[in-house]
Amino acid sequence: MKPLRVALLGCGTVGSEVVRLLREQAADLTARVGAPLELAGVAVRRPERAREHVDPGLLTTDAMSLVTRDDVDIVVEVIGGIEPARSLLLAAMKAGKSVVTANKALLAEDGETVFGAAREYGADLYYEAAVAGAIPLLRPLRESLVGDHVKRVIGIVNGTTNYILDQMDTFGASFTDALEEAQSLGYAEADPTADVEGFDAAAKAAILAQLAFHTPVSAADVHREGITEVTAADVAGAKAMNSVVKLLAICERVPDPDGSNGGRGVSVRVYPAMIPRSHPLASVREAYNAVFVEAQSAGSLMFYGAGAGGAPTASAVLGDLVAVARNRVGGTRGPVEVTYAELPVLPMGETVTRYYVQLDVADRSGVLAQVAELFARHDVSIQAVRQEGYGNDAKLVVVTHRAPDAALAATVEGLQRMDIVREVASVMRVEADEAP
Amino acid sequence: MKPLRVALLGCGTVGSEVVRLLREQAADLTARVGAPLELAGVAVRRPERAREHVDPGLLTTDAMSLVTRDDVDIVVEVIGGIEPARSLLLAAMKAGKSVVTANKALLAEDGETVFGAAREYGADLYYEAAVAGAIPLLRPLRESLVGDHVKRVIGIVNGTTNYILDQMDTFGASFTDALEEAQSLGYAEADPTADVEGFDAAAKAAILAQLAFHTPVSAADVHREGITEVTAADVAGAKAMNSVVKLLAICERVPDPDGSNGGRGVSVRVYPAMIPRSHPLASVREAYNAVFVEAQSAGSLMFYGAGAGGAPTASAVLGDLVAVARNRVGGTRGPVEVTYAELPVLPMGETVTRYYVQLDVADRSGVLAQVAELFARHDVSIQAVRQEGYGNDAKLVVVTHRAPDAALAATVEGLQRMDIVREVASVMRVEADEAP
Repeated sequence: MKPLRVALLGCGTVGSEVVRLLREQAADLTARVGAPLELAGVAVRRPERAREHVDPGLLTTDAMSLVTRDDVDIVVEVIGGIEPARSLLLAAMKAGKSVVTANKALLAEDGETVFGAAREYGADLYYEAAVAGAIPLLRPLRESLVGDHVKRVIGIVNGTTNYILDQMDTFGASFTDALEEAQSLGYAEADPTADVEGFDAAAKAAILAQLAFHTPVSAADVHREGITEVTAADVAGAKAMNSVVKLLAICERVPDPDGSNGGRGVSVRVYPAMIPRSHPLASVREAYNAVFVEAQSAGSLMFYGAGAGGAPTASAVLGDLVAVARNRVGGTRGPVEVTYAELPVLPMGETVTRYYVQLDVADRSGVLAQVAELFARHDVSIQAVRQEGYGNDAKLVVVTHRAPDAALAATVEGLQRMDIVREVASVMRVEADEAP
Repeated sequence: MKPLRVALLGCGTVGSEVVRLLREQAADLTARVGAPLELAGVAVRRPERAREHVDPGLLTTDAMSLVTRDDVDIVVEVIGGIEPARSLLLAAMKAGKSVVTANKALLAEDGETVFGAAREYGADLYYEAAVAGAIPLLRPLRESLVGDHVKRVIGIVNGTTNYILDQMDTFGASFTDALEEAQSLGYAEADPTADVEGFDAAAKAAILAQLAFHTPVSAADVHREGITEVTAADVAGAKAMNSVVKLLAICERVPDPDGSNGGRGVSVRVYPAMIPRSHPLASVREAYNAVFVEAQSAGSLMFYGAGAGGAPTASAVLGDLVAVARNRVGGTRGPVEVTYAELPVLPMGETVTRYYVQLDVADRSGVLAQVAELFARHDVSIQAVRQEGYGNDAKLVVVTHRAPDAALAATVEGLQRMDIVREVASVMRVEADEAP
């Protein structure tokens, strides 16, 4: 059977791992694809650097020529970033190549252009590794749930922040100390901004939302809060409620009150929140990721695995590579992103959620009544109140029922202005804590 | 585009749900497949019974004619059982039809014949719903991990037993009381044998093992223990160790000491065991299922979802139906089970595991020394011992390190014969509790 020729763009951590797997599993892969996979060329910035196991004759700096060469069937892009990756992917698809990418930044920022090109050119575009590393997630969402209707997706999609929060939960560490620990072990980068400020999670949320709801969502649409403001007190407060703080990417349909088909829109947001320890997402430790899906027919599903790292990501890339290769051997292509409805992404203020609020209050009679009255004035219903301490150490913990975020935020602002409230010590959203 | 014609075998809980979804999601499905899906006929035993939403003209008792009809493209089998399902599936594949089945009993008992026929006739055979209901599990295992090497699969694959054990854990109930509760709520059948004796889980273990290790495994090869002997004391003992009792289906490669490629064989077994509460599998509650996969490149993955019930299973069947339909539109087929190596299924005695043992002992000096000496005589290393109580209430809890099951079992027999041991109150295996 005629070999399928693969052009690899990028040969860093993930790229070199892909090369290694292609070589070591060649016999396996040939049996599974129905044809051998051959490396046609590897585009890099520094061809003079030797790459283990790569024939130097395959290295090139001219990526654009490589992706449009006649003898190339499949292009694997593991460079990252917006350009030149976008231009190369568009050129590859226009030239009839199948494309595998791990580029979450590009798909989150400009998914419309890239997915649009795939539709226009009838190209196979696979991107499992762009969202959650090695967890087979996108293919199940695209294929297995194909007869289903996804209502909500909640994900832990950033290993760095999950590792830090797990450390804070396990050892009572401060954010700063946990971050240092993470950096020393290689779980966080020297400049950890993209992870701890939630940019990485927001990009993945945008891709997940596009996939789940078949509507355009870009990273800019996603309400984003990172974990830099999470305190040891927040984490302890969660523990006291048998909950745990996680950085969550939440994508959900917002139904129309009149029950119309598309719904009012979608809500897509990233922020740290408390979830019950009994929830499957709570068992996601260290740098693992997981995505919890609620679908109409399938019910609740969760996919859990290693989010990042050379080996898991390369494993996801290889899975996609085999899928597109098999499609080419069979003369078919994978599922096409069909956009059904233009659903608006609703502003955070309208998103319905719940708050946990911890207040240091003056220990005077009538404090609880005043606080409760403030919540009532903003039409926020209180689910639970716990009052602890006496005298100078009086502490009030309030957990609300569901309410629009704007009302909850306004209530917190009101609390901050009250005389009897010395300090709003902790504010955190509460998610995934509903009676089934 | 010419419609694809679907023959449905069986119209019970799952079958009628499939019919409903085909009807309600027709427009969606057409867009995703690239052609409309049409019901060509529905084979049932009692055609005089009216089926909601099914044109009575489609009903037939002659299933064999239906599956071999020229105008039929795809056969969906949701009858269950060995015959006539096997003969019908073989005839369908021989006649060039694509096949979707939910029949775990058949695939577990005679997977070799059915998979062999799919290879021989070049037929597309999909069976997601045969293992874990709506959890997209088999397709990821077959496709996404295609460039990978699976080392171990641990699953909670039976909702009935998980519900019962969850009740025992949450409420301290006895097995009998928890079973009654499950039956009254519809989580267990009037005759619960297939579930509580582990037959269902063993069948699924066989299918998972075949898929993970590409070697024939039948349900008869699987070492099987159900949950009927699990006591409230076992569950309490697990709790005291911050663990929980789960009925686990475990499939793992057993490496060859000399490191040869295929390994010495595979171990496939089903039994109740203790796992740490921090393990992702421990968060699987009620009737949910989950399968935890350890692969060489991808690391640890877990798939979680609803194991059974009309709607989740129908959702899995529909996902497979769309996949085979799309293959037919594109002129291709899905991954073929390639058997690489005939790996023997090792006997349980050789399987390496760990034991938790709780003994009621006479409170005399020297008891611990005698007990420890017995373990040593069988070459079983002790990881932890806890001694509680005085006088008549002395209790010894021993947790071993890993050892061959035969040695562990022999040690327990030895304990039962010792004078100083009044009773071996609890014996349970300990799994998934290793330092990473």
